[in-house]
Amino acid sequence: MAAANKGPIRLGMVGGGRDAFIGGVHRIAARLDGHYELVAGALSGNPKKARASGVDLGLDPDRCYGTYSEMVGGETARPDGIEAVAIVTPNHMHFPPAKAFLEAGIHVICDKPLTLTLAEAKKLAAVVEKTGKLFVLTHNYTGYPMIRQAREMVRKGQLGTLRLVQSEYPQDWLSEKLEASGHKQADWRTDPKRSGAGGCIGDIGTHAWNLATFVSGLETESLCADLDSFVKGRKLDDNANVMLRFKGGAKGMIWASQVAPGNENALKLRVYGTKGGLEWEQEHPNQLWFTPFGEPKRLITRGGAGSIDAAGRVTRVPPGHPEGYLEGFANIYSEAAAAIHAHRKKNGKIPKGVLFPTVTDGLDGMRFIDACVRSSKKNAAWIKL
Amino acid sequence: MAAANKGPIRLGMVGGGRDAFIGGVHRIAARLDGHYELVAGALSGNPKKARASGVDLGLDPDRCYGTYSEMVGGETARPDGIEAVAIVTPNHMHFPPAKAFLEAGIHVICDKPLTLTLAEAKKLAAVVEKTGKLFVLTHNYTGYPMIRQAREMVRKGQLGTLRLVQSEYPQDWLSEKLEASGHKQADWRTDPKRSGAGGCIGDIGTHAWNLATFVSGLETESLCADLDSFVKGRKLDDNANVMLRFKGGAKGMIWASQVAPGNENALKLRVYGTKGGLEWEQEHPNQLWFTPFGEPKRLITRGGAGSIDAAGRVTRVPPGHPEGYLEGFANIYSEAAAAIHAHRKKNGKIPKGVLFPTVTDGLDGMRFIDACVRSSKKNAAWIKL
Amino acid sequence: MAAANKGPIRLGMVGGGRDAFIGGVHRIAARLDGHYELVAGALSGNPKKARASGVDLGLDPDRCYGTYSEMVGGETARPDGIEAVAIVTPNHMHFPPAKAFLEAGIHVICDKPLTLTLAEAKKLAAVVEKTGKLFVLTHNYTGYPMIRQAREMVRKGQLGTLRLVQSEYPQDWLSEKLEASGHKQADWRTDPKRSGAGGCIGDIGTHAWNLATFVSGLETESLCADLDSFVKGRKLDDNANVMLRFKGGAKGMIWASQVAPGNENALKLRVYGTKGGLEWEQEHPNQLWFTPFGEPKRLITRGGAGSIDAAGRVTRVPPGHPEGYLEGFANIYSEAAAAIHAHRKKNGKIPKGVLFPTVTDGLDGMRFIDACVRSSKKNAAWIKL
Amino acid sequence: MAAANKGPIRLGMVGGGRDAFIGGVHRIAARLDGHYELVAGALSGNPKKARASGVDLGLDPDRCYGTYSEMVGGETARPDGIEAVAIVTPNHMHFPPAKAFLEAGIHVICDKPLTLTLAEAKKLAAVVEKTGKLFVLTHNYTGYPMIRQAREMVRKGQLGTLRLVQSEYPQDWLSEKLEASGHKQADWRTDPKRSGAGGCIGDIGTHAWNLATFVSGLETESLCADLDSFVKGRKLDDNANVMLRFKGGAKGMIWASQVAPGNENALKLRVYGTKGGLEWEQEHPNQLWFTPFGEPKRLITRGGAGSIDAAGRVTRVPPGHPEGYLEGFANIYSEAAAAIHAHRKKNGKIPKGVLFPTVTDGLDGMRFIDACVRSSKKNAAWIKL
Repeated sequence: MAAANKGPIRLGMVGGGRDAFIGGVHRIAARLDGHYELVAGALSGNPKKARASGVDLGLDPDRCYGTYSEMVGGETARPDGIEAVAIVTPNHMHFPPAKAFLEAGIHVICDKPLTLTLAEAKKLAAVVEKTGKLFVLTHNYTGYPMIRQAREMVRKGQLGTLRLVQSEYPQDWLSEKLEASGHKQADWRTDPKRSGAGGCIGDIGTHAWNLATFVSGLETESLCADLDSFVKGRKLDDNANVMLRFKGGAKGMIWASQVAPGNENALKLRVYGTKGGLEWEQEHPNQLWFTPFGEPKRLITRGGAGSIDAAGRVTRVPPGHPEGYLEGFANIYSEAAAAIHAHRKKNGKIPKGVLFPTVTDGLDGMRFIDACVRSSKKNAAWIKL
Repeated sequence: MAAANKGPIRLGMVGGGRDAFIGGVHRIAARLDGHYELVAGALSGNPKKARASGVDLGLDPDRCYGTYSEMVGGETARPDGIEAVAIVTPNHMHFPPAKAFLEAGIHVICDKPLTLTLAEAKKLAAVVEKTGKLFVLTHNYTGYPMIRQAREMVRKGQLGTLRLVQSEYPQDWLSEKLEASGHKQADWRTDPKRSGAGGCIGDIGTHAWNLATFVSGLETESLCADLDSFVKGRKLDDNANVMLRFKGGAKGMIWASQVAPGNENALKLRVYGTKGGLEWEQEHPNQLWFTPFGEPKRLITRGGAGSIDAAGRVTRVPPGHPEGYLEGFANIYSEAAAAIHAHRKKNGKIPKGVLFPTVTDGLDGMRFIDACVRSSKKNAAWIKL
Repeated sequence: MAAANKGPIRLGMVGGGRDAFIGGVHRIAARLDGHYELVAGALSGNPKKARASGVDLGLDPDRCYGTYSEMVGGETARPDGIEAVAIVTPNHMHFPPAKAFLEAGIHVICDKPLTLTLAEAKKLAAVVEKTGKLFVLTHNYTGYPMIRQAREMVRKGQLGTLRLVQSEYPQDWLSEKLEASGHKQADWRTDPKRSGAGGCIGDIGTHAWNLATFVSGLETESLCADLDSFVKGRKLDDNANVMLRFKGGAKGMIWASQVAPGNENALKLRVYGTKGGLEWEQEHPNQLWFTPFGEPKRLITRGGAGSIDAAGRVTRVPPGHPEGYLEGFANIYSEAAAAIHAHRKKNGKIPKGVLFPTVTDGLDGMRFIDACVRSSKKNAAWIKL
Repeated sequence: MAAANKGPIRLGMVGGGRDAFIGGVHRIAARLDGHYELVAGALSGNPKKARASGVDLGLDPDRCYGTYSEMVGGETARPDGIEAVAIVTPNHMHFPPAKAFLEAGIHVICDKPLTLTLAEAKKLAAVVEKTGKLFVLTHNYTGYPMIRQAREMVRKGQLGTLRLVQSEYPQDWLSEKLEASGHKQADWRTDPKRSGAGGCIGDIGTHAWNLATFVSGLETESLCADLDSFVKGRKLDDNANVMLRFKGGAKGMIWASQVAPGNENALKLRVYGTKGGLEWEQEHPNQLWFTPFGEPKRLITRGGAGSIDAAGRVTRVPPGHPEGYLEGFANIYSEAAAAIHAHRKKNGKIPKGVLFPTVTDGLDGMRFIDACVRSSKKNAAWIKL
């Protein structure tokens, strides 16, 4: 099957059909750098809609499956079957297809949070290890070039010993009871059966925490979390105030909210050490503010003066021409592609520098969500992670 | 003594001599609107330096006192003695002179935090009540016009029911052990004997908390505080992570730090309710961001479109010509002057709208500091306020 | 040839091979929304490099041509020949291939400025008219959603009668004599034989002017331009100061520079009328500032509150997730795709709302460059456009 | 009269009574640093109002004059007569009192622009020279610390050889015909009899130009100016587009407008040279952006890292505590005070570093206004300055 190892990576997708949101983002991300070709899909939980959605996208009707199980069967039976699958369903539908595709020898690219429950997450990690297939978690903000740069600067010691991490992710879209209006995104994201035990903390709090640990390299020792459901009748938290203690003594705070009017996706990360500080905002992602202690603050721009290789290898256009959310997301796909290409070869090695979130990051994230929920239930007591 | 009740208010000062910082600020604030004349001083704890500092400022040598006690004696003996005294010493020297002047029938304008200890604070509140004199606490950030506007907008219900308050005050000047170098400001601010039990939390954390409650009108029910001394050998905290629970269910976070490189006086307040959100930054104090939920964010400027009387009555120049820290500070002095003028008259009433922090605010602040310190000692347990 | 009218648009490319810059951008832009498939190329002026570059991109070796003429021949001979070609060469190589492909019945998507000279531009406009094929000029900044919104707001009268337009595009990359170092982009852009009579004014001044007229709808009556070559030995202008008079009495200024340190691609447009003002910056393209006169400034965000259909139809992700340069560029390609799809059908009509720069815009741009150069040569005299 | 040479400088004021604007600003500026005592005034063109305004301010009734001539007489007759006078009247009333006070041996601090006409300006310059008294022009923006720093950085060569200056001062308050509503400020500022031949160009265009030359040190060789009165029936220009040519080859642009909705006092200066660029905005005056070519942009803050003596000597509070318009204005008064103190002594020398705009700057400004008006009348032809 040498032929099957050439050309763009053959990608399938689970979820992401009509009315979905994140599926479209994944498709653009997969397409942007030309590494993938979407060839198959089980694009909805509703088999009819699943097939119709595939036709919408111009897929071969034979490869528009009604369910992910059919897709596993159909694709493994073909010589040109998919090499990787993107799972872009609500959280409760991450584990079952992920397990099935991994066990069928197909790499998985999966949306976050990893699974519905921590128990599932642990099982999935075991499946990944056992199968040896790639598992890529789309913690997409880690794909932003200036986040890569921030991480590298921390690793190189440019901030000295870290003392403080402030990470926040406020939104306002759930300020009113949107789920009562039949809004699809609001509906499943506020439903514990499909979202898991965390609402806001699972949807965006994990992003804030993931980014904090990705950049700082710090390991969370314990936390105390005060979760609220401000909107009457809401089943999951829509605001999370969290304090963190990291191993080694650094401290942190996380604020995630879906009820803060005036905030769209205002994810912001600040990291401070003995020698300097870094600040970054997702809504202006091409800029990284760096202050070496005692010197003027410096504006490092993607591709501009002061930017380094860690950022340059995931950037496409010159400084001053903004890259955005889709480019950052595409970086995860392109990093995954590099890994998949390595897997195509016998004893292939993933090239140096290639970086993407894995099942381990996903498991850590589930532990974080779980700890936050447990802490909050104990009146925001401190909990070991 | 009708004559003594005319003209600018006769002001004395305790502290603020050579090498001091905040005394000069108070003097400019007192002078800016022309309501006061500085006529006497005990400007240092060192009697010689105290007198020399008075001469530096052009005071009548007879009114350059060596100690505050001498000043109480000397001024009460004169027909044209001071009507008010500004106390601008380190925290441990707030209570003794404040008590002495109040009991001598002289109004007191005092720097924050109120006192060295909560016990002292309670005593001082009693002295104020007993003497009936004015006690003005210079929580100067409450003097900023846009902070006044924010408070009024909350009171008018423009944000609906409040849910969230985020207040932060990061600095970086104590990132290294500056107190070891003989730096006067660093020296006393990190010394529990002169500063009290709170370092960062007392120096700037109280500002962040005071501002949050001034604008939101919310009452703190309980808090959990994680205080750190990151700089080796430092005797007081230099970073404070705090979570708040307000009566009625709103939640809050406070972050105060003296070790966050790249931050000068980055006090920032954000308040969110069911109907809208407000955001304000001390370093750009003429701007207030207001988002009515579901509408575009609006930039309200001091004196500009959208600004209201609560701001207008404490503003001097047109929009687009920035006012700053000194003007905000002067507003406290000018509000105090309005109150002192009312006291000059028998049965005089303080005009409507006049607003300044009092001993009650100071006592609340001391309770906040005390609770933070206690919480932190109990491993950041939740503490009722 | 019904088959040939299905599926993604078959695209060829002239220029954009190894070491090129803008070709890669065009390829991503074409790929992002999935409307095109790149199937053929004459990717360099050097036939050997042209073919090798095609192989790099994974093109069928039969369709990796040495020259654009070969490509015209080869593709018109195939039943599945290209339907459109992207011309991404230096300016002197726009006209010859554009003419050849149009005359071969192939739509053209061409980089700006239109041609080397105004004379060529006029000829090209005639060719477009005669052939009836589509000609799309990638004045890519017109693809930004908030620019679309700004234009629509002006058309709807939300600014009242326009009075002022301020447009600027400063860069700094040519502050030193980069062309002397063999830098490919600097080399051709400062060479009159390949760039035309305008340097900075042709490269970026046209963008500033195009955007100003696209949004304002104003027609330039006359201008006076002061062009400079600040870098010693540079053959073309690297800074342009321009004043504009529009028909109807509005006035404008344009500043374009390649020698302003601290500027990357700081394109900024401001438009003011009797009723309000708009401000937009390319480096933060998801934000549009709108001030109705006498009201607070409002921040309109892409996809957020206050955004309108004109923006919404060219946006992909929710507010707060930034789109950037590539998405704006892709919007031009997707608009072109809508037009090409219409052309596929007999009597097909371009859907309402589809908007892209055409040869007319290109001709206007050449007239602007020409007028600027003539004005500057006459000591910056006023020149009718 | 040794006694008269001690203590605060005895200051008089012409203009600035009830309903005036800038007079109040001058009084605060004079008071802020404690160098002056306002002791006399002829505060209005209406003698009755003039006297009443003086009483409002608490002046000795004997020194509340009905006219400036009376004041000259009254004050020169007193042993404790004023040493300096602030002239804060509309432009047509600058020259007569300035001449009278100078000839009476009294220093003059005068608002800008210098006079009603260029002819008057030349006469005034001659009077200043003949009398040897101080003449201080309150081009107040030159008092901002970061503007002082910018100037010094240019002089030290940190920008290399200057190439470009961009200066702009947009406002919006005259977007409608405010002068028709009896608005006092609008009334005289749009009246050629009181304002002179320049409206917007005289009121704020001169500020933009003055600041550009103050910081850059460049001398204007020629200019072309396109002035407009956009509001129907307005007698003076309300928008000015200007292009500049400096001696030595640098170029510049000035935009001043009173009809740009969304702008309050958005004075902005940008200066670029071979080695770097500087950017500064009046509405955020504590920040100066500096980009050494090829390095990341740096944020220099007043009093913070990177700030230099030239800024430090005119600053009062630590970095991060904003100073504003009044502090900048006060710096001019304090610099003037240093000069007046030097004049008090026989052979007194103005201390090194003291810097304030003089009659020469005022004369230059009048030449600039005059040239702009002449250029505009000649259809915006180039005019030598």
